[in-house]
Amino acid sequence: MKKIDLAEKFALITETWSPRILAELNGQRVKIAKLQGEFVWHAHEDEDELFLVIEGELRILFREQEVLLGPGQLCVVPRGVEHKPIAEEEVQVLLLEPAGTVNTGTAGGPRTVDAPEWI
Amino acid sequence: MKKIDLAEKFALITETWSPRILAELNGQRVKIAKLQGEFVWHAHEDEDELFLVIEGELRILFREQEVLLGPGQLCVVPRGVEHKPIAEEEVQVLLLEPAGTVNTGTAGGPRTVDAPEWI
Repeated sequence: MKKIDLAEKFALITETWSPRILAELNGQRVKIAKLQGEFVWHAHEDEDELFLVIEGELRILFREQEVLLGPGQLCVVPRGVEHKPIAEEEVQVLLLEPAGTVNTGTAGGPRTVDAPEWI
Repeated sequence: MKKIDLAEKFALITETWSPRILAELNGQRVKIAKLQGEFVWHAHEDEDELFLVIEGELRILFREQEVLLGPGQLCVVPRGVEHKPIAEEEVQVLLLEPAGTVNTGTAGGPRTVDAPEWI
Protein backbone atom coordinates (compact mmCIF):
# COMPACT_ATOMS: atom_id res chain seq x y z
CA MET A 1 0.00 0.00 0.00
CA LYS A 2 1.63 3.17 -1.11
CA LYS A 3 0.79 6.83 -1.18
CA ILE A 4 0.30 8.30 -4.65
CA ASP A 5 0.71 12.06 -4.94
CA LEU A 6 -1.16 13.61 -7.86
CA ALA A 7 1.05 16.72 -8.11
CA GLU A 8 4.22 14.60 -8.21
CA LYS A 9 2.77 12.40 -10.92
CA PHE A 10 1.50 15.30 -13.04
CA ALA A 11 4.99 16.84 -12.83
CA LEU A 12 6.34 13.79 -14.68
CA ILE A 13 3.98 14.22 -17.64
CA THR A 14 5.34 16.20 -20.55
CA GLU A 15 2.90 15.24 -23.33
CA THR A 16 -0.72 16.25 -23.68
CA TRP A 17 -3.57 13.84 -24.56
CA SER A 18 -1.58 10.86 -23.37
CA PRO A 19 -3.31 9.28 -20.36
CA ARG A 20 -1.05 7.48 -17.90
CA ILE A 21 -2.21 4.81 -15.48
CA LEU A 22 -1.99 5.70 -11.80
CA ALA A 23 -3.86 2.84 -10.18
CA GLU A 24 -5.99 -0.18 -10.99
CA LEU A 25 -8.77 -1.53 -8.82
CA ASN A 26 -11.80 -3.72 -9.44
CA GLY A 27 -10.99 -3.88 -13.14
CA GLN A 28 -11.04 -0.10 -13.40
CA ARG A 29 -8.15 2.22 -14.03
CA VAL A 30 -7.44 5.61 -12.54
CA LYS A 31 -5.51 7.62 -15.10
CA ILE A 32 -4.18 11.15 -15.25
CA ALA A 33 -3.58 13.31 -18.29
CA LYS A 34 -2.65 16.80 -19.29
CA LEU A 35 -4.95 18.13 -21.99
CA GLN A 36 -4.59 21.21 -24.15
CA GLY A 37 -6.41 22.06 -27.36
CA GLU A 38 -9.25 20.13 -28.96
CA PHE A 39 -9.67 16.38 -28.94
CA VAL A 40 -11.71 14.35 -31.43
CA TRP A 41 -15.42 13.59 -31.14
CA HIS A 42 -15.73 10.05 -29.87
CA ALA A 43 -17.76 7.68 -27.73
CA HIS A 44 -16.92 4.56 -25.74
CA GLU A 45 -19.27 1.76 -26.66
CA ASP A 46 -19.27 -0.15 -23.38
CA GLU A 47 -17.51 2.11 -20.90
CA ASP A 48 -18.70 4.96 -18.74
CA GLU A 49 -15.94 7.51 -18.16
CA LEU A 50 -15.38 9.96 -15.34
CA PHE A 51 -13.46 13.23 -15.71
CA LEU A 52 -12.32 15.03 -12.54
CA VAL A 53 -10.45 18.29 -13.05
CA ILE A 54 -7.48 18.74 -10.73
CA GLU A 55 -6.13 22.00 -12.16
CA GLY A 56 -7.29 24.25 -14.98
CA GLU A 57 -10.54 24.26 -16.89
CA LEU A 58 -12.02 21.61 -19.18
CA ARG A 59 -14.94 21.94 -21.55
CA ILE A 60 -16.65 18.75 -22.57
CA LEU A 61 -18.86 19.18 -25.59
CA PHE A 62 -21.80 16.88 -26.11
CA ARG A 63 -24.02 16.97 -29.19
CA GLU A 64 -26.70 18.98 -27.38
CA GLN A 65 -25.03 20.58 -24.40
CA GLU A 66 -21.66 21.30 -22.88
CA VAL A 67 -20.18 21.07 -19.41
CA LEU A 68 -17.44 23.36 -18.10
CA LEU A 69 -15.38 21.84 -15.30
CA GLY A 70 -12.95 23.61 -12.97
CA PRO A 71 -10.79 22.20 -10.16
CA GLY A 72 -12.71 19.84 -7.90
CA GLN A 73 -15.51 19.37 -10.43
CA LEU A 74 -16.35 16.13 -12.19
CA CYS A 75 -18.63 14.72 -14.84
CA VAL A 76 -19.57 11.18 -15.83
CA VAL A 77 -19.91 10.51 -19.55
CA PRO A 78 -22.16 7.46 -19.97
CA ARG A 79 -21.24 4.75 -22.46
CA GLY A 80 -22.31 5.49 -26.00
CA VAL A 81 -22.50 9.26 -25.54
CA GLU A 82 -20.44 11.24 -28.02
CA HIS A 83 -18.17 13.82 -26.43
CA LYS A 84 -15.31 16.10 -27.34
CA PRO A 85 -13.00 17.46 -24.64
CA ILE A 86 -11.53 20.92 -25.19
CA ALA A 87 -9.00 22.77 -23.05
CA GLU A 88 -8.12 26.32 -24.07
CA GLU A 89 -5.19 26.22 -21.66
CA GLU A 90 -3.48 23.21 -20.17
CA VAL A 91 -5.69 21.27 -17.78
CA GLN A 92 -4.83 18.41 -15.45
CA VAL A 93 -7.51 15.73 -15.28
CA LEU A 94 -8.03 12.49 -13.43
CA LEU A 95 -9.92 9.86 -15.42
CA LEU A 96 -11.69 6.78 -14.23
CA GLU A 97 -12.69 4.08 -16.69
CA PRO A 98 -12.51 0.30 -17.14
CA ALA A 99 -9.15 -1.25 -17.91
CA GLY A 100 -8.89 -1.55 -21.67
CA THR A 101 -10.67 1.70 -22.45
CA VAL A 102 -9.08 3.42 -25.43
CA ASN A 103 -8.86 7.21 -25.36
CA THR A 104 -10.49 7.73 -28.74
CA GLY A 105 -13.22 5.12 -28.18
CA THR A 106 -14.76 3.86 -31.39
CA ALA A 107 -13.52 6.87 -33.38
CA GLY A 108 -9.91 5.67 -33.60
CA GLY A 109 -7.47 7.77 -35.61
CA PRO A 110 -3.96 9.13 -35.07
CA ARG A 111 -4.57 10.34 -31.52
CA THR A 112 -5.29 6.84 -30.27
CA VAL A 113 -3.14 5.57 -27.40
CA ASP A 114 -3.64 1.81 -27.52
CA ALA A 115 -1.54 0.82 -24.55
CA PRO A 116 -1.22 3.62 -22.02
CA GLU A 117 1.79 3.40 -19.72
CA TRP A 118 1.85 3.42 -15.95
CA ILE A 119 3.28 6.42 -14.18
CA MET B 1 -24.48 14.92 -18.16
CA LYS B 2 -24.10 17.25 -15.27
CA LYS B 3 -21.29 18.95 -13.45
CA ILE B 4 -20.70 17.73 -9.90
CA ASP B 5 -18.85 20.12 -7.60
CA LEU B 6 -17.03 18.41 -4.73
CA ALA B 7 -16.96 21.49 -2.46
CA GLU B 8 -20.71 22.02 -2.88
CA LYS B 9 -21.41 18.38 -2.07
CA PHE B 10 -19.11 18.29 0.96
CA ALA B 11 -20.89 21.41 2.28
CA LEU B 12 -24.10 19.37 2.46
CA ILE B 13 -22.59 16.69 4.68
CA THR B 14 -23.03 17.18 8.41
CA GLU B 15 -22.23 13.69 9.71
CA THR B 16 -18.87 11.95 9.84
CA TRP B 17 -18.24 8.34 8.75
CA SER B 18 -21.34 8.34 6.58
CA PRO B 19 -20.35 7.91 2.93
CA ARG B 20 -22.69 9.46 0.37
CA ILE B 21 -22.90 8.41 -3.26
CA LEU B 22 -21.82 11.02 -5.79
CA ALA B 23 -21.75 9.02 -9.01
CA GLU B 24 -22.04 5.50 -10.34
CA LEU B 25 -20.23 4.16 -13.38
CA ASN B 26 -19.28 0.72 -14.63
CA GLY B 27 -20.73 -0.85 -11.49
CA GLN B 28 -18.50 1.30 -9.29
CA ARG B 29 -19.49 4.09 -6.98
CA VAL B 30 -17.76 7.35 -6.29
CA LYS B 31 -18.57 8.38 -2.73
CA ILE B 32 -17.56 11.24 -0.50
CA ALA B 33 -17.34 11.30 3.27
CA LYS B 34 -16.18 13.46 6.13
CA LEU B 35 -14.13 11.50 8.62
CA GLN B 36 -13.00 12.45 12.10
CA GLY B 37 -11.70 10.21 14.85
CA GLU B 38 -10.92 6.49 14.61
CA PHE B 39 -12.81 3.97 12.54
CA VAL B 40 -12.89 0.22 13.14
CA TRP B 41 -10.39 -2.29 11.79
CA HIS B 42 -12.00 -3.97 8.80
CA ALA B 43 -11.41 -5.50 5.39
CA HIS B 44 -13.51 -5.85 2.25
CA GLU B 45 -13.51 -9.44 1.08
CA ASP B 46 -14.02 -8.88 -2.64
CA GLU B 47 -13.57 -5.15 -3.17
CA ASP B 48 -10.54 -2.96 -3.68
CA GLU B 49 -11.08 0.52 -2.28
CA LEU B 50 -9.51 3.85 -3.22
CA PHE B 51 -9.15 6.78 -0.82
CA LEU B 52 -8.37 10.22 -2.28
CA VAL B 53 -8.00 13.05 0.24
CA ILE B 54 -9.61 16.29 -0.87
CA GLU B 55 -9.02 18.33 2.29
CA GLY B 56 -7.32 17.54 5.60
CA GLU B 57 -5.13 14.61 6.55
CA LEU B 58 -5.99 10.92 6.75
CA ARG B 59 -3.96 8.14 8.34
CA ILE B 60 -4.70 4.63 7.17
CA LEU B 61 -3.30 2.01 9.47
CA PHE B 62 -2.49 -1.41 8.10
CA ARG B 63 -1.27 -4.28 10.27
CA GLU B 64 2.36 -3.71 9.33
CA GLN B 65 2.57 -0.15 8.02
CA GLU B 66 0.65 3.06 7.79
CA VAL B 67 0.02 5.64 5.08
CA LEU B 68 -0.51 9.34 5.74
CA LEU B 69 -2.48 11.11 3.01
CA GLY B 70 -2.88 14.86 2.49
CA PRO B 71 -4.85 16.76 -0.16
CA GLY B 72 -4.31 15.37 -3.65
CA GLN B 73 -2.89 12.09 -2.36
CA LEU B 74 -4.49 8.70 -2.76
CA CYS B 75 -4.05 5.08 -1.75
CA VAL B 76 -5.61 1.85 -2.97
CA VAL B 77 -6.45 -0.73 -0.32
CA PRO B 78 -6.60 -4.13 -2.02
CA ARG B 79 -9.40 -6.55 -1.20
CA GLY B 80 -8.80 -8.62 1.91
CA VAL B 81 -6.34 -6.18 3.47
CA GLU B 82 -7.27 -5.04 6.98
CA HIS B 83 -7.18 -1.30 7.47
CA LYS B 84 -8.26 1.30 9.97
CA PRO B 85 -8.74 4.92 8.90
CA ILE B 86 -7.94 7.61 11.47
CA ALA B 87 -8.41 11.37 11.16
CA GLU B 88 -7.20 13.51 14.04
CA GLU B 89 -9.09 16.46 12.56
CA GLU B 90 -11.91 16.42 10.06
CA VAL B 91 -10.86 15.20 6.64
CA GLN B 92 -12.78 15.18 3.36
CA VAL B 93 -12.23 12.05 1.30
CA LEU B 94 -13.39 10.73 -2.04
CA LEU B 95 -13.85 6.97 -2.15
CA LEU B 96 -14.06 4.66 -5.11
CA GLU B 97 -15.36 1.14 -4.69
CA PRO B 98 -17.82 -1.31 -6.26
CA ALA B 99 -21.53 -0.67 -5.79
CA GLY B 100 -22.63 -2.66 -2.79
CA THR B 101 -19.46 -2.16 -0.77
CA VAL B 102 -20.28 -1.74 2.92
CA ASN B 103 -18.17 0.74 4.90
CA THR B 104 -17.24 -1.69 7.66
CA GLY B 105 -16.55 -4.59 5.28
CA THR B 106 -16.71 -7.98 6.98
CA ALA B 107 -16.28 -6.45 10.46
CA GLY B 108 -19.87 -5.17 10.71
CA GLY B 109 -20.92 -3.47 13.94
CA PRO B 110 -22.76 -0.29 14.90
CA ARG B 111 -20.87 1.96 12.47
CA THR B 112 -22.14 0.04 9.46
CA VAL B 113 -24.02 2.05 6.84
CA ASP B 114 -25.89 -0.60 4.86
CA ALA B 115 -27.55 1.61 2.28
CA PRO B 116 -25.65 4.85 1.72
CA GLU B 117 -27.68 7.70 0.28
CA TRP B 118 -26.99 9.73 -2.82
CA ILE B 119 -25.98 13.33 -2.43
